[in-house]
Amino acid sequence: MKAKVYIKHRQEILDPQGKAVLQGLNNLGFKGLTDVRVGKYIEITLDCASVESAHEQVKDMCERLLVNTVIENYTYVIEP
Amino acid sequence: MKAKVYIKHRQEILDPQGKAVLQGLNNLGFKGLTDVRVGKYIEITLDCASVESAHEQVKDMCERLLVNTVIENYTYVIEP
Repeated sequence: MKAKVYIKHRQEILDPQGKAVLQGLNNLGFKGLTDVRVGKYIEITLDCASVESAHEQVKDMCERLLVNTVIENYTYVIEP
Repeated sequence: MKAKVYIKHRQEILDPQGKAVLQGLNNLGFKGLTDVRVGKYIEITLDCASVESAHEQVKDMCERLLVNTVIENYTYVIEP
């Protein structure tokens, strides 16, 4: 099965990469943009006995390696 | 409205960052992982008259700045 993890900076944390992308889009002539946030998207292919155990394992991976929970938020979905 | 853009390397392109994360997860004792791909997740807040024009604008942003279409795939969703 496949796990898709979406990670972004917490709302109160500055995101200079997002600001740079916003500036770049403005320079290209795009109008009406108010905010851009750049985060990470991680796709994990894993063999798991059940969706429940996959949920547990992916949550554990996020907390222990993938996400810096001090400055980042994450969500994930499991696709069987 | 909000656009969420998901970018990842094409399947045939090597993803060393993903390989490093896979190795890290294995070292932490996670079993049964067969592949990890690391991509980008971009959230854009924009003022647009309609969902259709937002679709058009976001597609244009992806093609012109956000995505290197030679080596990357992207998908996006628009949330009103």
